[in-house]
Amino acid sequence: MIEYRNLRVALLGGGSVGAQVARLLLEQKEELANRVGAGLDLVGILVRDVNAERTVDLPQELFTTDAESLILGADVVIELIGGLEPARSYILMAINSGADVVTANKALLAAHGPELFEAADHVGAQLNYEAAVAGAIPIVRPLRDSLAGDQVNRILGIVNGTTNFILDRMDVAGDTLEEALAVATELGYAEADPTADIGGYDAAQKAAILASLAFHTTVPLASVYREGITSVTPEQIESARKAGYVVKLLAICERLVDEEGRAGVSARVYPAMVPRSHPLAAVHGANNAVFVEAEAAGSLMFYGAGAGGVETASAVLGDLVSLARRHVAGGPGFAASSHADLPVFDIGSVTTRYAVTLEVADEPGVLATIASVFADHHVSLALVEQSMTPAQPGTASHAPVSSTATLVIGTHEATEAALAATVNDLAANPVVTQVASVLRVEGV
Amino acid sequence: MIEYRNLRVALLGGGSVGAQVARLLLEQKEELANRVGAGLDLVGILVRDVNAERTVDLPQELFTTDAESLILGADVVIELIGGLEPARSYILMAINSGADVVTANKALLAAHGPELFEAADHVGAQLNYEAAVAGAIPIVRPLRDSLAGDQVNRILGIVNGTTNFILDRMDVAGDTLEEALAVATELGYAEADPTADIGGYDAAQKAAILASLAFHTTVPLASVYREGITSVTPEQIESARKAGYVVKLLAICERLVDEEGRAGVSARVYPAMVPRSHPLAAVHGANNAVFVEAEAAGSLMFYGAGAGGVETASAVLGDLVSLARRHVAGGPGFAASSHADLPVFDIGSVTTRYAVTLEVADEPGVLATIASVFADHHVSLALVEQSMTPAQPGTASHAPVSSTATLVIGTHEATEAALAATVNDLAANPVVTQVASVLRVEGV
Repeated sequence: MIEYRNLRVALLGGGSVGAQVARLLLEQKEELANRVGAGLDLVGILVRDVNAERTVDLPQELFTTDAESLILGADVVIELIGGLEPARSYILMAINSGADVVTANKALLAAHGPELFEAADHVGAQLNYEAAVAGAIPIVRPLRDSLAGDQVNRILGIVNGTTNFILDRMDVAGDTLEEALAVATELGYAEADPTADIGGYDAAQKAAILASLAFHTTVPLASVYREGITSVTPEQIESARKAGYVVKLLAICERLVDEEGRAGVSARVYPAMVPRSHPLAAVHGANNAVFVEAEAAGSLMFYGAGAGGVETASAVLGDLVSLARRHVAGGPGFAASSHADLPVFDIGSVTTRYAVTLEVADEPGVLATIASVFADHHVSLALVEQSMTPAQPGTASHAPVSSTATLVIGTHEATEAALAATVNDLAANPVVTQVASVLRVEGV
Repeated sequence: MIEYRNLRVALLGGGSVGAQVARLLLEQKEELANRVGAGLDLVGILVRDVNAERTVDLPQELFTTDAESLILGADVVIELIGGLEPARSYILMAINSGADVVTANKALLAAHGPELFEAADHVGAQLNYEAAVAGAIPIVRPLRDSLAGDQVNRILGIVNGTTNFILDRMDVAGDTLEEALAVATELGYAEADPTADIGGYDAAQKAAILASLAFHTTVPLASVYREGITSVTPEQIESARKAGYVVKLLAICERLVDEEGRAGVSARVYPAMVPRSHPLAAVHGANNAVFVEAEAAGSLMFYGAGAGGVETASAVLGDLVSLARRHVAGGPGFAASSHADLPVFDIGSVTTRYAVTLEVADEPGVLATIASVFADHHVSLALVEQSMTPAQPGTASHAPVSSTATLVIGTHEATEAALAATVNDLAANPVVTQVASVLRVEGV
């Protein structure tokens, strides 16, 4: 295998996302090098003040205020400053110096996307931005690559966690908008000035990016119709609930034909009623989800945490590893990335929870007997429910009715081996008439 | 912009997926060329019998039985034959001749993935396989690229549509397994021999692929523990329902530490109880969903149609366009793919449904007046509900009680412009006390 020189990675911005990106780059250095086929060396972090207090402990010598030296000395530049300037100039400087770029800057992409992508195309640089929409949820890459051979007809997105949290509180807890916003602020889901979120401005930026990507056309931010949630009332939410709907702030991107028969697109953001049966209705709290309707693929949904420093850092690192792999031959092959060489454990070592249904003799002491069988194998019980088995009609005429009971037992986590041994012993135990059912319990 | 020569695309297999891929390649020729930056020429379709009847009308001259000539003359080979041989030999022939490959063959990847990926890495060929797992749902690319900088800890997947359809019928309609299977067969969700599906073999192949990808390690099919759904009883489903669970056939990939402290992974397939509140519980019918828990990204879910010819064709074409783009400089940039140049329509041209709440005088003829305002603007009504507005406590002492009523009106699709004009007229109409609420209705 060819050895590649390490790639020099510059980080612009040391805020909540930047600090997590730096931490993961340092902590996962070896693992990431294996995945890429070349090392990723974090060479510096651009900050306003090198002596400011940090929430994450990082080597002091990484911090710098010298943007130009940092950018011009890097193979890859990760822009996490946000805002239009100097982010735009820094990205153009990076591209023009031959570096690849990763950015999470939705405001910049919505305002200056075409300029930046043209600059990147011109020199053959890569510009990745998965983190700019819906945080850690992979939506940019699926739209750009996975659906590249399909026709997207519509996107309905819950792309702002703050407003979804607020509307969900209003729906679930009956809060007013003000009460729900206060809770969101207290829990850190809303910023001190919540205008960008509750006014729908943040969602509109994401709608512009999604529509541009989905429809292979330029959708300027100014053409995105926008209403926030500030006028949503508890009465509207209540009346929607009664009718079987829930109110969500949606970013909608749609392929349309207008009244004159012209093909075109629409991008818009507003609060709307969504049927409770729609997958988007089940998106609670500060989560995000993007529902995509494509000509061939049908309906798809992508769901996850929409924001947060470490979640967004995951998307940034995915972009970084993807573009770094293109620096090395072979790309992200199965064999190339199959470096971990981990043992695959037998089912016996796996732990999960179980629901065991037993038919047992209805006699004193039976429960204690059963419980001790579980205890013998160190399987601890989370729940025991006993119900009388109804006498079978037509079976009670001659034989004396031997009364049985049904026991439903839920276990805590146990290994498959321990559970199998327990079930064996239960089946052999004279108080057990039948092991009626053994099912594993997942997702709890 | 540099002009690239067209890419020669060979299709192996003319079945339900292959026919849809061919159709889309021909119908979308110009659009796909724009997205790639070079034309994609379908040069032939390998079939067993060139004169067999086809479900999709395709040019007869494309069909051939000469595998070698077709493969050796292609830049990209799409393998949709299925099974181990001759699919494996054909893919190796393609790779060794310098072609890139797209395959949807899960059985082959689960059995011979490492060999194929090593061969591709060796010559620097691309081997894409998004369609091999969960049909049109983008899951391979998110795991391989988007989460490439993260650590996946667990995957819970509903990756077999047939068994999900059967278990869903048993849960929702109270069918037995046999009854549900009969319905699935009738509707085309189950094959004549359903063993691969209901025995969990299909899901086990997908689990092997997902685990290999997620954990960057080789997970042989033989090491995947497998139980099908054949022993799931209506009693288990009923008892799960009572306890707040639903039974799903899950493919589970998990990062584990065993009792001796060794790190390793597990891949397994079995029916399990899932809490009704879990996002996977809401996956109905023949749909698929993959729930991923990652260290930094948190919980993500990918949802959509799991199979079907045209859905799977979407994933195949996405793979094709992605790899074809790597033949041309610049890759899938924003500007490069922004070729469509579609108009972005103003909100006035957008059509959607509306829920309008009005407070009106409770007098004879009011409903007719209101209805005619909507009719004047060609907005047709889907639903009208009238309820008396309760008299406000403490307001009824002196003034004569002027009785008002609340009207909730649901419209059919109308343009924003027509709705806005309607609302204006309603507000000005003397019988309307107040336009209490106007909300759009989406996702119906």
